[in-house]
Amino acid sequence: MHPERTPLLADAPRRDSRESDRRAEEEDAALHNTPLPTRTSRAREIALFTWALLATAAVIVLAVVVQHGRTTNPGYPAPPPQAASKKSNGKKNLVFMVSDGMGPASLSLTRSFRQVTEGLPIGDTLTLDKHFWGSSRTRSSSSFVTDSAAGATAFSCGKKSYNTAISMLPDFTPCGTVLEAAKRAGYATGLVVTTDITDATPACFASHVYYRSQGDEIALQEVGEGVLGRTVDLMLGGGRCHFLPNTTAGSCRFDDVDVTAIAQEKHGFTYVDDRAGFDALALGKNVSLPVLGLFATADVPFEIDRRNMANVYPSLSEMALTALTALEEATKDSDKGFFIMIEGSRIDHAGHVNDPAAQVREVLEYDKTFKLVLDFLAKSDTEGVLVATSDHETGGLALALQAPGELPVYNWHPSVLAKANASSEYLAHLLLERITTHQGDTEDELRHWIKTDLVRGYLGIHDALEVEINALASNPAAAIHTFARMVSLRARIGWSTHGHSAVDVNVYSSGGPGTERIRGNVENTEVGGFLRDYLKVDVDAITKELRQKMKLGEPPLVAEEIAAADFGHSLEWMMEPSL
Amino acid sequence: MHPERTPLLADAPRRDSRESDRRAEEEDAALHNTPLPTRTSRAREIALFTWALLATAAVIVLAVVVQHGRTTNPGYPAPPPQAASKKSNGKKNLVFMVSDGMGPASLSLTRSFRQVTEGLPIGDTLTLDKHFWGSSRTRSSSSFVTDSAAGATAFSCGKKSYNTAISMLPDFTPCGTVLEAAKRAGYATGLVVTTDITDATPACFASHVYYRSQGDEIALQEVGEGVLGRTVDLMLGGGRCHFLPNTTAGSCRFDDVDVTAIAQEKHGFTYVDDRAGFDALALGKNVSLPVLGLFATADVPFEIDRRNMANVYPSLSEMALTALTALEEATKDSDKGFFIMIEGSRIDHAGHVNDPAAQVREVLEYDKTFKLVLDFLAKSDTEGVLVATSDHETGGLALALQAPGELPVYNWHPSVLAKANASSEYLAHLLLERITTHQGDTEDELRHWIKTDLVRGYLGIHDALEVEINALASNPAAAIHTFARMVSLRARIGWSTHGHSAVDVNVYSSGGPGTERIRGNVENTEVGGFLRDYLKVDVDAITKELRQKMKLGEPPLVAEEIAAADFGHSLEWMMEPSL
Repeated sequence: MHPERTPLLADAPRRDSRESDRRAEEEDAALHNTPLPTRTSRAREIALFTWALLATAAVIVLAVVVQHGRTTNPGYPAPPPQAASKKSNGKKNLVFMVSDGMGPASLSLTRSFRQVTEGLPIGDTLTLDKHFWGSSRTRSSSSFVTDSAAGATAFSCGKKSYNTAISMLPDFTPCGTVLEAAKRAGYATGLVVTTDITDATPACFASHVYYRSQGDEIALQEVGEGVLGRTVDLMLGGGRCHFLPNTTAGSCRFDDVDVTAIAQEKHGFTYVDDRAGFDALALGKNVSLPVLGLFATADVPFEIDRRNMANVYPSLSEMALTALTALEEATKDSDKGFFIMIEGSRIDHAGHVNDPAAQVREVLEYDKTFKLVLDFLAKSDTEGVLVATSDHETGGLALALQAPGELPVYNWHPSVLAKANASSEYLAHLLLERITTHQGDTEDELRHWIKTDLVRGYLGIHDALEVEINALASNPAAAIHTFARMVSLRARIGWSTHGHSAVDVNVYSSGGPGTERIRGNVENTEVGGFLRDYLKVDVDAITKELRQKMKLGEPPLVAEEIAAADFGHSLEWMMEPSL
Repeated sequence: MHPERTPLLADAPRRDSRESDRRAEEEDAALHNTPLPTRTSRAREIALFTWALLATAAVIVLAVVVQHGRTTNPGYPAPPPQAASKKSNGKKNLVFMVSDGMGPASLSLTRSFRQVTEGLPIGDTLTLDKHFWGSSRTRSSSSFVTDSAAGATAFSCGKKSYNTAISMLPDFTPCGTVLEAAKRAGYATGLVVTTDITDATPACFASHVYYRSQGDEIALQEVGEGVLGRTVDLMLGGGRCHFLPNTTAGSCRFDDVDVTAIAQEKHGFTYVDDRAGFDALALGKNVSLPVLGLFATADVPFEIDRRNMANVYPSLSEMALTALTALEEATKDSDKGFFIMIEGSRIDHAGHVNDPAAQVREVLEYDKTFKLVLDFLAKSDTEGVLVATSDHETGGLALALQAPGELPVYNWHPSVLAKANASSEYLAHLLLERITTHQGDTEDELRHWIKTDLVRGYLGIHDALEVEINALASNPAAAIHTFARMVSLRARIGWSTHGHSAVDVNVYSSGGPGTERIRGNVENTEVGGFLRDYLKVDVDAITKELRQKMKLGEPPLVAEEIAAADFGHSLEWMMEPSL
């Protein structure tokens, strides 16, 4: 069949042939035994045409369904409604969430904790579980165990790089990021974290330095002092100290540059630095972009502690809602939507401390935020996708711990975590404060206070050993780890390091256009590739511009050293009592 | 449009109208401005009909694709071709693979090991990785940390039960298994393992006892002495000792029952018990079912050792190929296919020993077997699905280890595992053998031999500490753990227990009909539900029959004790030097 012979609507048969003509045709047909070129024939054409049209429409609908990789299978979480029904005007919102340091065991930890503390049945799951999408391989170009910098560079640039790299490649040249390219393409952009806004994960989206510890430079680039100018419209989190001149209390800069002043005067930022300022944002309903909100000198407290200081610090979910609402409002008349990175930053810190009581509340708050984002996207008029993953696991967390000299026990104890109402970090802070302010305490008074107020009062541990209390009293500098160890041991939770580990991490998604390509087991750079391609932004053009404009000094030795880092062979510790 | 007016092929217009008739029609059409009921019209009908037919065919094809939840997205592994193209005659093969004790970290371990040892690029992945399907929650009804018995009961019966249960429920009544129901429905059935065929995982598919240690009873039920009669057509693996009377060398039975004789004489089994017998099966081309192949007294050696004893023991992949070929041949004239469970049993054992050098070779052999099954299903004329998962993680494996007193190091070292050419189990065996047979050795001679032959020769460790060699020489009973620890510490691999842990485990699949429902994060019982529903077998009917026919004694105390088991509070060890 030639396509040009396919009938168009304009060719639809009309029904105005006269009765006489019909009769002649019928006779002719009868005479020659040919099919009637009649009303029947025309009706048949209409029927055929309608059939063909309906079938073609069905093909298109089904092809779209297949293309988007969605199914109607009730056994798997359906993507949010907007993913299928959104207008095809090309406007898009992309929310990328990072659960820094959250490995697979953190999910089992949190799910079982919630089942126990809320009396839920065995099958009860987190919102994250319902949107499990796959897993991500995390090794960096320099090591089997990545750090957050190389991990975030995989997301921001879609490239593997060396540990400590802030959107720099192994050859020490900068790589353009999805956020920078999104801003250039007209999207609004945001970063929300619970640690320093200059920390590795957020830094990788809006700055380029050899080494993650270059926080002073990162702060400047984040507010618009880099060669690309301002690329971030909204930043909420902690890390104020890198924005204040070292002539100011609460600064951690090496210089006297006032980055908050530069942000406001030169780049037009609204700057808020406390809870009152946050509240004035009205959860995003009263925000004029760009906005810089730094609510803690460094980290926002762990959620387990912050909930008792909610009049001082906003939560991750509060900041996320504020950001989403503000970005939605700011783009309501735009043909582009927004890109935002929201990080549950301190899941990682709880892993570094090996504090499971802190971690479980961090993951719950992250899960709550994940649900909030899903609901936001579902209600929005704009097509939107949520993708969430971790950069790496932290701590080598294992939900099992065998005591030396004991047989392994096939259980662990969420109830121990439920009784702990403060982080080890907070308790170590209280301890140091007490020692500083109560210098008249006798040893016995201090030990009694530790045992009663901290260990029993905050951790709910009633069987503390004398050796444990003595360790806390005599070595307060190590107290943060001692408190965490007291909780972990009683919960029968194991850790293998205060650093990171190499296990694959989970990927979660709302589903929606293009997300099928990151289902299954993917390289972390493929997640970065998805971010870029979903927004259809030109990251390579940004890379080119950065290479032309950035004046980079010699790569600092430290970066090369880190890239080649290995460990010394100090083996004597190896024969510690084995399990 | 009414459906009855839709034209059929028989109505296709003919092209025999005469030229004179055509002219009259043309005139008429011109006069009345109606479309020509002409050759053009008929051709148009044909065009319309063809368009409609093609579009309808496309609808059908796409609907099938959507129904099966498959996509053509190249970013995700395509299901094997047979899944889409198989005849719909209802004949099906189902292969269920179990990687006992393989948690998420085992994959990262094995993938990086292979990248290093074979010089492969960063993105190189295992076959398993390419078929990543989701993750499974593993807790049992009695604990957050399951054992293999409760884990396998979730697969075999689709129900949660207590640790140690062999297809028994928490109320100590039996539950019918997918294998038993499949056999009853006319499927051929098989079990392939590398440990005892009476071990928890295989036992759960074909026997029912309160407690997994009831191996003598399990053996009898497996060959057909249970109330259902014989339900397994093929068993290949280890664990011969439970089948031999205790009057025989190599028996571990408490009684003098010869289960091999009962199997052969009463239930018609062909029995083979060595490599020659295995070879006579001609990789499945010369098998008459039922067949019982028990190639080791207990466990088949770890793959790292077995490869040097291939003339004695078949590998997992060899046994799997033999089983698949035999079952395919046995069902070639049947309208039912087969169900087989293939277990990489000893990934778990390597985890229990905390031996990463053994585990990585076990996982590689499992991956090879997974690929072999995929290829087999792809080539088969019968529709087939492969689903693979683990029952639990073992060891709390972490690919990171911080030495006490050291800072954490962000790396681990696959090359250490590459140099190790024997399992700790095998080396401990050699050590005990040496001590038994060389009683004239001086202490120095023994230490020299340990250091030179075992540690340097087999493990490739050239920096052994005196304290390590002394520990091996003075405490050979603990040598299995000492060897494993020497490897793990140098590779910077951490373990938290010699038992199991609670992390979710991975699910893998070929894809294919119905597999979409187990994508994402599922409860382990949902995997069992899939097995049952894919084969469309009536497990409940088997449960009913078992409850009617089985004469169960009082539940042994041990089962109740295990169900309620917890640990004593011996806390002194808690203050071992912390990390």
